[in-house]
Amino acid sequence: MEGPLELNFRHEVKGEKLVIAIAQDYKTSEVLMVAYMNKEALERTIETGKAHYWSTSRCKLWFKGESSGHFQEVHEILTDCDEDAVLLKVKQNGGACHEGYFSCFFRQICSEDSVGQDAGKCEVRIVKEKIFEPEKIYGEK
Amino acid sequence: MEGPLELNFRHEVKGEKLVIAIAQDYKTSEVLMVAYMNKEALERTIETGKAHYWSTSRCKLWFKGESSGHFQEVHEILTDCDEDAVLLKVKQNGGACHEGYFSCFFRQICSEDSVGQDAGKCEVRIVKEKIFEPEKIYGEK
Repeated sequence: MEGPLELNFRHEVKGEKLVIAIAQDYKTSEVLMVAYMNKEALERTIETGKAHYWSTSRCKLWFKGESSGHFQEVHEILTDCDEDAVLLKVKQNGGACHEGYFSCFFRQICSEDSVGQDAGKCEVRIVKEKIFEPEKIYGEK
Repeated sequence: MEGPLELNFRHEVKGEKLVIAIAQDYKTSEVLMVAYMNKEALERTIETGKAHYWSTSRCKLWFKGESSGHFQEVHEILTDCDEDAVLLKVKQNGGACHEGYFSCFFRQICSEDSVGQDAGKCEVRIVKEKIFEPEKIYGEK
């Protein structure tokens, strides 16, 4: 459908109605992270131009970058055929991942060589480089 | 963690334990779709090299392309910091979207010009071209 914005907040976590939200680098198209948004998070994202999510662990609105300074400046938002997910094209300041990587998807399960093998033999390995030390951004744990 | 494959199937829909699964074109990095996988869908994907998901509407394993021929050939699988999502880099045969588009994300909510406005004023519009007619692939509804 074209017309007014009415998404299908059909994903429910701890009673909160949500859409899936994927953030992607606006230039390279690298996928940075996936999280959820409730209606308020989507509205704040649109209105401020900075990505907001719904934290399903803390059960609260999550302004990405609020503590780290690693904001996501939103250039475009798309939705999918079911209107239950959004795709954000963003300029990522710093890194998206709290473990110090630009993208949260820094671990490989299968390479082209290992697709087709017994899944039980898969090994997860880190295939990206850290771009910052989390302790310096978030403080010692 | 590096080591054996052990994901966190923490997303629960109708009692099924799931990870979020994003499919992305392996060459252009265009995001094609987002869905869920249970453990069996992930294992089948790894072992066959073709994407399988868990259909949360039909509550069954979903071999993508089984009826349409629009298979996704998997080149690489990554997981994220929380190990509750996977990113598939795929060669998409035909289109990913049952509505006839290459990507399911064919509707725009906000462009660069409209970010920053009142969310209530957002209009959803189609910004991609169809690449096939769904009726010819899936039959008349």
